[in-house]
Amino acid sequence: MPVNYATPTPDRIHAVAGVRLGVAEAGIRKANRRDLTLIELAAGSTVAGVFTQNRFCAAPVQVCRAHLATGDIRALVINTGIANAGTGEPGLAAANATCAAAARLMDLRAEQVLPFSTGVIMEPLPVDAIRAGLPIAQKALHADGWYDAAHAIMTTDTVAKVASRRIVIGGKSVTVTGISKGAGMIKPNMATMLGFVATDAAVSQPMLERLVKEAADASFNCVTVDGDTSTNDSFILIASGRGEARFDAVTAPGWNEFKAAVIEVARELAQAIVRDGEGATKFIEIAVAGSRTLEEAKAVGYAIAHSPLVKTAFFASDPNLGRILGAIGNAAQLHPALADLDVAKLRLWLGDVLVAENGGRAASYREEDGARVMKPAEIVVRIDLGRGSHAAKVWTCDFSYDYVKINADYRS
Amino acid sequence: MPVNYATPTPDRIHAVAGVRLGVAEAGIRKANRRDLTLIELAAGSTVAGVFTQNRFCAAPVQVCRAHLATGDIRALVINTGIANAGTGEPGLAAANATCAAAARLMDLRAEQVLPFSTGVIMEPLPVDAIRAGLPIAQKALHADGWYDAAHAIMTTDTVAKVASRRIVIGGKSVTVTGISKGAGMIKPNMATMLGFVATDAAVSQPMLERLVKEAADASFNCVTVDGDTSTNDSFILIASGRGEARFDAVTAPGWNEFKAAVIEVARELAQAIVRDGEGATKFIEIAVAGSRTLEEAKAVGYAIAHSPLVKTAFFASDPNLGRILGAIGNAAQLHPALADLDVAKLRLWLGDVLVAENGGRAASYREEDGARVMKPAEIVVRIDLGRGSHAAKVWTCDFSYDYVKINADYRS
Repeated sequence: MPVNYATPTPDRIHAVAGVRLGVAEAGIRKANRRDLTLIELAAGSTVAGVFTQNRFCAAPVQVCRAHLATGDIRALVINTGIANAGTGEPGLAAANATCAAAARLMDLRAEQVLPFSTGVIMEPLPVDAIRAGLPIAQKALHADGWYDAAHAIMTTDTVAKVASRRIVIGGKSVTVTGISKGAGMIKPNMATMLGFVATDAAVSQPMLERLVKEAADASFNCVTVDGDTSTNDSFILIASGRGEARFDAVTAPGWNEFKAAVIEVARELAQAIVRDGEGATKFIEIAVAGSRTLEEAKAVGYAIAHSPLVKTAFFASDPNLGRILGAIGNAAQLHPALADLDVAKLRLWLGDVLVAENGGRAASYREEDGARVMKPAEIVVRIDLGRGSHAAKVWTCDFSYDYVKINADYRS
Repeated sequence: MPVNYATPTPDRIHAVAGVRLGVAEAGIRKANRRDLTLIELAAGSTVAGVFTQNRFCAAPVQVCRAHLATGDIRALVINTGIANAGTGEPGLAAANATCAAAARLMDLRAEQVLPFSTGVIMEPLPVDAIRAGLPIAQKALHADGWYDAAHAIMTTDTVAKVASRRIVIGGKSVTVTGISKGAGMIKPNMATMLGFVATDAAVSQPMLERLVKEAADASFNCVTVDGDTSTNDSFILIASGRGEARFDAVTAPGWNEFKAAVIEVARELAQAIVRDGEGATKFIEIAVAGSRTLEEAKAVGYAIAHSPLVKTAFFASDPNLGRILGAIGNAAQLHPALADLDVAKLRLWLGDVLVAENGGRAASYREEDGARVMKPAEIVVRIDLGRGSHAAKVWTCDFSYDYVKINADYRS
């Protein structure tokens, strides 16, 4: 069960002019489940993406990078069940064959198709099943296909993840709608295990490439479930240009409002992944301020967010301050610039309760206050490092029996 | 239950001339358990230590560093129950008061006493209980006290950890005996959560300082349970000089043999901590070769050893190659020099089975072979990065339900 997240009902998901989605049961790894999604983009759409930094990046990621470089993307094919990662040359051939099959069907060139895979690593991708499923997905193409597509890209997810906004900027209507998936192997380095956001605004290619990085840095690149960066992480931003608004430069009127809407959708999708993190019972925001750089703040945030001792204490609703301070003290292992961190200057809050200062427990701290703020399903951990003016947030979840259960059972 | 480790029986533990140990039930956090250990060193002993790199290093670690700098150490006081970490100035005063109490009792200066604490973080150290317990521990001082001391320094450990060797070097008898403790918050950066090794050989101070670093790097600094470097890690090497052998320079006859014996004892103690890792059901050696530097090999080893996904797969005896390759692909996040790692050149073995090469699954690999080598309680993972001639080993354990149980329940 996700922590305070439910899939929006279809009536709350806005279609994006110029984007249609269709799904199929292709039997890629298991029968009788939707495992293939086709997304069709109108001519003239711009598309930008960011991808995993894992050296074992999946074959589809490599193909996506190559095809995005050629421009003029018109279709996306997403399969679950098999990740097509750690598959060597045959894996690349399979990803290319997927693109070729979709291109043939839709009268495109293979380079106009982006392939995405998610599921088990190191197993061969059954291209024949995808070839057979694509015409079914094509027949199902529909502007209101977001809800179904969000379900069809799930793997260990327990809920489908959709976020949607319709706003008016300078008198012009702008729609931003996106879907994402992911629950484990989540510590995106550039983007997460499949996130797709589309807008009907027209956005020039350079502006879209800039925006996809900014949006990823403010959303998917701030969440972690288990610290394991996936081999397949991909975040794609699509601008169909079929709506009323147009953005060609940062000076374009309304650009900041538009950017904020895109980031809001991306952040909602990224946080939904953490809320649905494998075995999660708590959603935790770690807000680090007072650092000398953004990187320092992020390193402290991740040092806390990745500590199994801290995560199990959250699971137990235990205000175990020592483990949090211990994790902060280790952040220099992630980021050497923190080697001169002065712990006497640091302040730590759980919720609204100041728990540590002057290198030890805050004089005003009472254990019952700590216990009170650790109880809810959502907890904010706030740290002021007292050495600068930068800040960052990291979102994570706790570490429960079910995390072990899910990952010891998966594949079996 | 530890993985293939049992405490040696007292008859297999060699006393070290010049070193006596005594324990007491001081009621530091709980009643009726041995929680205070006193170690007395003969005049003329040399002592060297390495300590945690955690910025929140405990008060006793700070006092140890200061006292070691003055030389002429004659006693060690070790308490469990309370770690005296994250305790600010009052914590430092408590550690100094402990030294003063032991010094008064033993007719020493406070600077001749090293304090060590392990247990709950951020709670005040009850110095009165220690003061009351010290005379009892002093009365119990005995050359054969190693077995009892190994028990008295335990916290979440399920077995006491002792290693002992008596060898003859150049016709002279040399004894090396040590104890350690630790099961969680284990990823020593300089040394582990309390390891003490003593020899009766005479070793000059510069040689001992060199040796303690080498021994830590070859033992405690190669193990990890959960990736959380403790606030209290301390590894102490004592040379009483009351035996037959004497080492004043690396050119001293038998130095290499002696060094090997010390490393062997330290490694046995370090591996015992992993075998007794919280919730551990498997002991895993990760041997990385073919790296450009030692640091590259260690980064790959730790990337695997810290991945919750890999550790839960080990718990399930699941030959989940994808998770291991995924973890290797992420090692550049720990060590940026690995950003140009060519995964096509990498080879991976589980036990004696080649499982991955050419960027994918090895052609010869059969799932039943993988399942076979994952079944035993001890598993060797071998990686050849194919880019250099350096190598390193990391020892770790799996991640089980009991890890969550132990850490969600601890403190409660």
